[in-house]
Amino acid sequence: MADILKIGSYQFQSRLLLGTGKFPDLDIQQQAVDASETEILTFAIRRLNIDNPDNPNFLERLDLKKYTLLPNTAGAQTAEEAVRIARLAKASGLCDMIKVEVIGDMRTLLPDPIGTLKATEMLVKEGFIVLPYTSDDPMLARHLIEAGAHAIMPGASPIGSGLGLLNPHYLSFIIEECEGKVPVIIDAGVGSPADVAVAMELGADGVLLNTAVAGAKDPVLMAEAMKLAIQAGRKGYVAGRIPKKRYANASSPMEMMIE
Amino acid sequence: MADILKIGSYQFQSRLLLGTGKFPDLDIQQQAVDASETEILTFAIRRLNIDNPDNPNFLERLDLKKYTLLPNTAGAQTAEEAVRIARLAKASGLCDMIKVEVIGDMRTLLPDPIGTLKATEMLVKEGFIVLPYTSDDPMLARHLIEAGAHAIMPGASPIGSGLGLLNPHYLSFIIEECEGKVPVIIDAGVGSPADVAVAMELGADGVLLNTAVAGAKDPVLMAEAMKLAIQAGRKGYVAGRIPKKRYANASSPMEMMIE
Amino acid sequence: MADILKIGSYQFQSRLLLGTGKFPDLDIQQQAVDASETEILTFAIRRLNIDNPDNPNFLERLDLKKYTLLPNTAGAQTAEEAVRIARLAKASGLCDMIKVEVIGDMRTLLPDPIGTLKATEMLVKEGFIVLPYTSDDPMLARHLIEAGAHAIMPGASPIGSGLGLLNPHYLSFIIEECEGKVPVIIDAGVGSPADVAVAMELGADGVLLNTAVAGAKDPVLMAEAMKLAIQAGRKGYVAGRIPKKRYANASSPMEMMIE
Amino acid sequence: MADILKIGSYQFQSRLLLGTGKFPDLDIQQQAVDASETEILTFAIRRLNIDNPDNPNFLERLDLKKYTLLPNTAGAQTAEEAVRIARLAKASGLCDMIKVEVIGDMRTLLPDPIGTLKATEMLVKEGFIVLPYTSDDPMLARHLIEAGAHAIMPGASPIGSGLGLLNPHYLSFIIEECEGKVPVIIDAGVGSPADVAVAMELGADGVLLNTAVAGAKDPVLMAEAMKLAIQAGRKGYVAGRIPKKRYANASSPMEMMIE
Repeated sequence: MADILKIGSYQFQSRLLLGTGKFPDLDIQQQAVDASETEILTFAIRRLNIDNPDNPNFLERLDLKKYTLLPNTAGAQTAEEAVRIARLAKASGLCDMIKVEVIGDMRTLLPDPIGTLKATEMLVKEGFIVLPYTSDDPMLARHLIEAGAHAIMPGASPIGSGLGLLNPHYLSFIIEECEGKVPVIIDAGVGSPADVAVAMELGADGVLLNTAVAGAKDPVLMAEAMKLAIQAGRKGYVAGRIPKKRYANASSPMEMMIE
Repeated sequence: MADILKIGSYQFQSRLLLGTGKFPDLDIQQQAVDASETEILTFAIRRLNIDNPDNPNFLERLDLKKYTLLPNTAGAQTAEEAVRIARLAKASGLCDMIKVEVIGDMRTLLPDPIGTLKATEMLVKEGFIVLPYTSDDPMLARHLIEAGAHAIMPGASPIGSGLGLLNPHYLSFIIEECEGKVPVIIDAGVGSPADVAVAMELGADGVLLNTAVAGAKDPVLMAEAMKLAIQAGRKGYVAGRIPKKRYANASSPMEMMIE
Repeated sequence: MADILKIGSYQFQSRLLLGTGKFPDLDIQQQAVDASETEILTFAIRRLNIDNPDNPNFLERLDLKKYTLLPNTAGAQTAEEAVRIARLAKASGLCDMIKVEVIGDMRTLLPDPIGTLKATEMLVKEGFIVLPYTSDDPMLARHLIEAGAHAIMPGASPIGSGLGLLNPHYLSFIIEECEGKVPVIIDAGVGSPADVAVAMELGADGVLLNTAVAGAKDPVLMAEAMKLAIQAGRKGYVAGRIPKKRYANASSPMEMMIE
Repeated sequence: MADILKIGSYQFQSRLLLGTGKFPDLDIQQQAVDASETEILTFAIRRLNIDNPDNPNFLERLDLKKYTLLPNTAGAQTAEEAVRIARLAKASGLCDMIKVEVIGDMRTLLPDPIGTLKATEMLVKEGFIVLPYTSDDPMLARHLIEAGAHAIMPGASPIGSGLGLLNPHYLSFIIEECEGKVPVIIDAGVGSPADVAVAMELGADGVLLNTAVAGAKDPVLMAEAMKLAIQAGRKGYVAGRIPKKRYANASSPMEMMIE
């Protein structure tokens, strides 16, 4: 069974996208990346020190041939800033994919819907493969699809909060909205493997996470747990779960009950 | 890392206990059992046709050397019936472990607390390794431990309901109650891999399920998903998840924000 | 519409039962009791200083003709202790109703199912009107009904925790179990008016609470809020709520949409 | 205690806003409006038959001096349509308040964020008192406040779904966002009095509902229940609820425990 995730012209076996921020050190980061078996690494362009190539850089430690890089525009508060950061990324030759982050508020780090849509429209026109980080508003997802986004990345809850999926109902509306059009990657707020499984069982095409791994007591073991949770949730979704019932449903035939 | 589940004198690598009821046919059952990598199979003694050994029997299809059998007393509505069924199981030479099921109600299939405790007391005295299926009442779990139960098996929700963990709070109280004494196996009501992960992340030592696999559209694939979910949840628990926060927690350093 | 709560031989207009512990002072307690419009006051017999009638007593401040007293056996850890305390209450002439509390654990204050059932059996035989505080185990509720309990009082969550209804599903099973037999009073763990409304909308016959009022910043105002929540939830239950739907249901006719 | 709801230049004692669609008949509607003690009635302008004043009209039955009318733009799918409908309402002389509804999808009836913001900007400039029906996206709420909206009306769940508050976490972010600026009226999706109490306890300034009353088995009794739930939730919020705790908190002093 070839169960492939397609984003734009790219194809992936893994459905786990991993961020590279906040690991205790570069060794642990590398081991966690390995354990996760991710194929897509995301990072803030602002951390690349593009203007100062002499500085040490987390990317140097990774075998870049093994990964597709998904730079993000973290730090942008307007569409214009996001576009400017995206162009920097492209100019560096690292990747033509870009995760749009236009943050509206420093406390919740929730995405600004207006700026996100505008940046998506602009970057699609410039030829990027655009993956916007967005709220869980299904109507905004529709606008982003119409603007040409190549994937929709709704937040489960605030970045790094570990709150999991606050509104699975609207996330499932977004999944319906995107079906047959573009993949849905649940992004932000995931705290544990169970959250990942819930997301995949809703029918999401993938999950992006960072803090849940980097901030765990044992990041490498958690990275492996997340890899397994992605697979468990995906296979569980494909396998077709049992319906929920108010009352019980005996697994042992009742006609054999002791009389 | 040897992460071993111990029940009485037994030791297991796998933390998934699989029931054998309601599979579409014996071939699918066998493949699902293989895919699950379970080491413990549970089944209703009443289904064994012990009195009529000429009848075909699901156990014949399995390589019994690979599995520890955990017969259950399904069908019993009183402690005395459960004890009688348990003795039948022992007499058959299959196993000295017994899962006590004393069902109080045919609609919810919830366990009868009084009969469950009484049967546990009686069977412990007769030398069984006793695993009672019980409600999620932490105080009843304490009585069962005092009675000598070798594991506590609280239901997540009604058997076969697929409702998942209705009361994770009290399940975690039971896990606290049992810590350092006996393992906790979440039993009944699990519907999907995410439910399994939630149970393991609470700190449960294992999960027993049946309908969630046997009743899935693709039972073999679901068995594999459950195996992965057990591992994901267990590793996630050991790895130590991030705390939950009301607001966000940036994964990219904010001091690098575009000014 | 006479919507009467019947417990044993008693009848009440109000469905709110109020505990009398932990109020900041007796003035506030009295005002809160007034604002709640409760007709049933519960209190720990141990607080009555029955052995030392010279001590000041919270009951002295209340016009006892206006209330039915529901003494409880708080402090009992065995059935025998509960029975002894209940007899003290009866001997004082205050009331023939008794709320059975047999606590199994000092950290969770959850009721001991075995001791609770035993105390209920004993006190019913002695002619008390018995209201056992119990877990949310529907099978234990059945045993308590069979033992002759005059109401079932399942906890919503641990006493004073404010966690609300941890398991509304099993509470609704208890309500089904008791229907046409005895009233169900949700007892313990309620934190806010919304919790009260949820309980009443499940079909509970009443709610007993204490800390949620006594521990509020403004206990008197909270008492009034709880009174209103009881009425709101009860009327909402009787009025018959709309079903839940996955998608929307226009309140304005769609045929009048602008074309 | 004068606890006043202010919207633009208006002041209200009641915090319940009631819609007028889908009642079984005009008699029941009138009785339900009376029982609710609402001061604000909302209705779709398209239902007014403004072009055909000979048609019977639900407003004729109401004593319009008692109510502030809040016409809505139901049926609009673009900002321009909403503005056109709002002007019709103003021209009729009924009110200078307008509830902006720009619906993006006929199945979920979720509001279109882009059209809603645009219509709000346009109508504020034309001097309306503008109350936009919006998603639960806190960043969109911020844009709407900046555009001059006089209240924010986030949906709890899809219109008429009865699902209650799908994402109380983000609704509470919106309430924080609006604090000291404009009131927050939870609008759409409420199913029962408990939902109303939850909304008010979050700190919402009011709740607008329609189907939950009009579609109840007894709409008049449900209207009364909703009135009580608004008061219960509001008073509960002002009174200051107890904190939630993992374990118990005895309401009877433990030092009086039986030794």
